[in-house]
Amino acid sequence: MKFTILTLFPEMFDSFKSASMIGRAIQDKRIEIETINFRAFSSNKHNQVDDSPFGGGAGMLIQAQPLASCVESLDIKPETRIIYMTPKGKVFNQALAIELAESEHLVFVCGHYEGIDQRFIDRYVTDEISVGDYVLTGGEVPAMIVIDAVARMVGGVLGKQESYEEESHYNSLLEYPHYTRPAEFDGLAVPEVLLSGNHAKIADWRFEESLKITGERRPDLLKKYDASHLTRKKRQLVDSYVKKYCYKK
Amino acid sequence: MKFTILTLFPEMFDSFKSASMIGRAIQDKRIEIETINFRAFSSNKHNQVDDSPFGGGAGMLIQAQPLASCVESLDIKPETRIIYMTPKGKVFNQALAIELAESEHLVFVCGHYEGIDQRFIDRYVTDEISVGDYVLTGGEVPAMIVIDAVARMVGGVLGKQESYEEESHYNSLLEYPHYTRPAEFDGLAVPEVLLSGNHAKIADWRFEESLKITGERRPDLLKKYDASHLTRKKRQLVDSYVKKYCYKK
Repeated sequence: MKFTILTLFPEMFDSFKSASMIGRAIQDKRIEIETINFRAFSSNKHNQVDDSPFGGGAGMLIQAQPLASCVESLDIKPETRIIYMTPKGKVFNQALAIELAESEHLVFVCGHYEGIDQRFIDRYVTDEISVGDYVLTGGEVPAMIVIDAVARMVGGVLGKQESYEEESHYNSLLEYPHYTRPAEFDGLAVPEVLLSGNHAKIADWRFEESLKITGERRPDLLKKYDASHLTRKKRQLVDSYVKKYCYKK
Repeated sequence: MKFTILTLFPEMFDSFKSASMIGRAIQDKRIEIETINFRAFSSNKHNQVDDSPFGGGAGMLIQAQPLASCVESLDIKPETRIIYMTPKGKVFNQALAIELAESEHLVFVCGHYEGIDQRFIDRYVTDEISVGDYVLTGGEVPAMIVIDAVARMVGGVLGKQESYEEESHYNSLLEYPHYTRPAEFDGLAVPEVLLSGNHAKIADWRFEESLKITGERRPDLLKKYDASHLTRKKRQLVDSYVKKYCYKK
């Protein structure tokens, strides 16, 4: 799978590309990350890429031409997705990460300053994506978020299947609490059930902890949880948490 | 303002710290970013920091001890916030960014692998924060998101006040479209009003475009928009968009 990033700050991706899982996935040739400074595509003799907004206002905008020429230079297939990272976009979530992981090639356009010329968006962009309801300096860190979330679902990037199928948000419940050695840390013990060796009991405890924490912190997610694949007893348990947390007052 | 990051991959922050606005803010001594590899605090003779989960399951967990010893080594004041980046946390948004920007010192704990021992969280963490409903390899890129959003609100980091007060999410409306030179790009013109020089008309057009795009894409935000500071005419305009987008079917 290939990720191409159009940015004025390609060096921002240097450490991201070499560290941890992403670094290994690149070494193993499971993914490829290409960064392109679209300033090189400016037709302006000073390689300028920004100008002030029509209609006035603070800040500078990125012009359509350098971005357009940069995209035109790429090997774009009909199914290539050209993604503009913007707080105005569709809110990124795990379902969208799973969908994007099916692509062969994702192109990310990282804006900066006040934004980019709308006509580039209208003509070239297939997806506007926001990583959350907050304002950032540019699209570079958001692009890293999307690449990280997508890349780890590419076959072979993570060690084991379970490593992501049990995680928070994979099935819309938040994760149960985790404990590792030692059994007592600074006067705090591990919940006894986890030391019992009774796997069915442990699984039940973890499931109920997931329901509880999701109910307490994110009733919106608990309400969306699809319990249809569960046993009748577990469905009743889910119902009791939904009643407790999603409809109080 | 100081940001301290506890991570197993401090090198992931190298380019983030030197690029763009963050790099300038550090140079100007408006902010300070310190990264600490908590592996150095492991009491294990091989500097191991992870172990398998009690109760079984895939993956490894980060142990409480190295993180606890690392935090104990810092100059923590009662008002210092110790933030664990986790998909289970409170969802980060602009209001929380504004709140965090009032702090003198934020400490970020970046997990990795399957998570960290709950007893460290129970004892030390003041805030669990999630940057969105998706799963990532570690807390490093999410910490960059929070630092970027917070740092740009520290006095003097951005050039002008307007640069953030008119942005998407600052007041819960998405931003109107932007256009810059040339007036015609690849057959596409700039909306005529923006060339009119009539500032009141331009402001009205932008406000209505903001209402329209927020209604189309994020009716949840439009519904929350506080119009009480506006003129009666504008409040009626807001009402008409709320009616159109927030209550259909």
